[in-house]
Amino acid sequence: MKISQRVQRVEYSAIRKLTPVAKKAEENGKKIYHLNIGAPDIEVPDIYFESFKNVKKGALPYAPSEGIKELRNAVSKYYNDRNIKYSPEDIIITSGASEAILFAVEAVADYDDEIITTDPFYTNYNTVFQQLNVNIETFKTSPKDGFKIPDKETIEKSVTDKSVAILISNPTNPTGAMYSREELDRICEVAIENNLFIIADEVYREFIYDGNEFISFGELEGIEDRLILVDSISKRFAACGARIGSIASKNKEFMAAMDKLTTSRLAVATLEQIAASKLYEETDSYFKRVNEEYKSRRDTIYEELNKIPGVQVEKPKGAFYIMPTLPVKDSEDFAKWLLESFDIDGETLMVAPASGFFKNPEDGKNMVRLAFVLDNDKIKKCMRILREGLKEYNSRNE
Amino acid sequence: MKISQRVQRVEYSAIRKLTPVAKKAEENGKKIYHLNIGAPDIEVPDIYFESFKNVKKGALPYAPSEGIKELRNAVSKYYNDRNIKYSPEDIIITSGASEAILFAVEAVADYDDEIITTDPFYTNYNTVFQQLNVNIETFKTSPKDGFKIPDKETIEKSVTDKSVAILISNPTNPTGAMYSREELDRICEVAIENNLFIIADEVYREFIYDGNEFISFGELEGIEDRLILVDSISKRFAACGARIGSIASKNKEFMAAMDKLTTSRLAVATLEQIAASKLYEETDSYFKRVNEEYKSRRDTIYEELNKIPGVQVEKPKGAFYIMPTLPVKDSEDFAKWLLESFDIDGETLMVAPASGFFKNPEDGKNMVRLAFVLDNDKIKKCMRILREGLKEYNSRNE
Repeated sequence: MKISQRVQRVEYSAIRKLTPVAKKAEENGKKIYHLNIGAPDIEVPDIYFESFKNVKKGALPYAPSEGIKELRNAVSKYYNDRNIKYSPEDIIITSGASEAILFAVEAVADYDDEIITTDPFYTNYNTVFQQLNVNIETFKTSPKDGFKIPDKETIEKSVTDKSVAILISNPTNPTGAMYSREELDRICEVAIENNLFIIADEVYREFIYDGNEFISFGELEGIEDRLILVDSISKRFAACGARIGSIASKNKEFMAAMDKLTTSRLAVATLEQIAASKLYEETDSYFKRVNEEYKSRRDTIYEELNKIPGVQVEKPKGAFYIMPTLPVKDSEDFAKWLLESFDIDGETLMVAPASGFFKNPEDGKNMVRLAFVLDNDKIKKCMRILREGLKEYNSRNE
Repeated sequence: MKISQRVQRVEYSAIRKLTPVAKKAEENGKKIYHLNIGAPDIEVPDIYFESFKNVKKGALPYAPSEGIKELRNAVSKYYNDRNIKYSPEDIIITSGASEAILFAVEAVADYDDEIITTDPFYTNYNTVFQQLNVNIETFKTSPKDGFKIPDKETIEKSVTDKSVAILISNPTNPTGAMYSREELDRICEVAIENNLFIIADEVYREFIYDGNEFISFGELEGIEDRLILVDSISKRFAACGARIGSIASKNKEFMAAMDKLTTSRLAVATLEQIAASKLYEETDSYFKRVNEEYKSRRDTIYEELNKIPGVQVEKPKGAFYIMPTLPVKDSEDFAKWLLESFDIDGETLMVAPASGFFKNPEDGKNMVRLAFVLDNDKIKKCMRILREGLKEYNSRNE
């Protein structure tokens, strides 16, 4: 009896890798602030909880594999309000964006095929790719210019005859970059010229700062047939625990593939789908309010990071992540040390070492990803822990 | 751009294959009784719905990837009450048994490996295997003896050097068979002698008729390290739409693999897990009441089928499926015809053609699977539709 190669090759998520260390620290009585994971402290709108109270008791059959009509309608309306023309029939409901990504990659990539993405990239893409024996190819983006999409030539260097799709997170986890129309156009050109699918992960679409205008791949013309739009309510409505996501596509063959994959896992939780469709009734004022809160957190964490000697950091344009370079050689060692050996008044900080977000782990070895999912007071505390921690860590290693 | 071979090779589920035909019939105003799918009409216990009302509003972070403690404790208690010794740490929560099967197969089988099961088998196993490029090998069971596990020699003929596991559904979907200790022992011997995992799908454990005693693989000694026990609340508490399942195993390497796979999809819906743990508070009187209802339905469908000329059928011992042989050459054609061209007072019947439950579709070509998930009056109506339908179908084809 052996465990399959396909699972053996899966690496532990960079975001959760240190979870056992954190658990141990907590058992020893330490309080830990979690900036390692994008689980917002923001409350889910009341309407989510209310919806469960209105459910009629009785039988609970499987929901349709493609999702309940009500929710597909709601997602379609949300898109159309934003100039993204998807009808309910173009949309299927998934168990979070995680399942959406899994299904999308399963449907377009065979054993040993390649998918192209930015470097750094969302580490959990890798665990999906590794399970499916799909290889990741990347083109580099740099902290020096805010992780912009590079020129066309650079992107094209990552294309091989095994490439089947470009996967783009926008606004970007883990860097907080948001791409301009020109940057998106460059991606589209490469996709069209090399006949690739575009998988667009836009789960952070509502988190855009400084009045910038977000442009969705779904608004662009000429890529309708190759676009696979992945979405989720986890961040949009702070409903991570609901596990509701979606895929939209106008490609009929792709949607036929989705029909097979959704059927094979029968359905997504019915009551969660009903609750999610209620969440989509939230108006722009909700998004505005949440956005303001995150903008303020973004400003706080950016300012506080800037005050720490030796830290280099770009201001994120979107999402709720920031990826500073720290004055350490090995951010994983530092992150572990913070949990195991450091505290201020019994409190410490958990960060995600950035190595796991890069194709070549060396590239992110002195960086961390921080999720600004706590309120300003807590972020200030966290940054004090980081500052004092860096001081002590570096003095001990001198 | 192309759809992957891995998805192209996935066949449509035999259970849902005719869904588009049924939808069309419904649009034309026909009422359809669904005996094609195991979605019970039984009400979910009230406690499920109540639990949502007691949830505190607020933030909704991801649940732990392995499942919430409360539910892992509840499943562990349920097992221990039945002489199956799993601690909460041996149990992970999945999104239905579908995800449990997917994870189990992913973890033990590589590209081109083989998993052995009975023939016929639950058709959705195949969609999982096909996605993962895992091959299915089967040993035949026969309607003539109630689909019993054959002798050891016959089972062993299906073992090759590519075999990694034996997957057994008990009580069995689609046949309604329930295996004796001797039959289970035979499976264990083959597994031990050939160093195979045993994946036991026991989601129908509470549906046992005629006072027979169900024996779980989890009660047997000497296979602890190779046993992977798959479970679900979908049938147990008629909560198909909740999408809550589980995997139990004492194999540490296997559980480490589960850690990777559960982490890669982050979590299962939080409130559904809370509700599921409440369901496990139901007492034996609940199971007894539901069991009696299903026994009565089983008796009804069995008696009614026996009255239909040319139908051959064995009385199921467990689960809520029955697999009669019909006096037709092609049960899929007949099933389609029932939906498209037949009705009694505007009502017709949907059945699952049995071909898709067999490795060689020819073997099931004159059989159907019926799920007795409707009440006795409806079952009687369904059997009248079947009887009259067969008469008319056969007279038209003469």
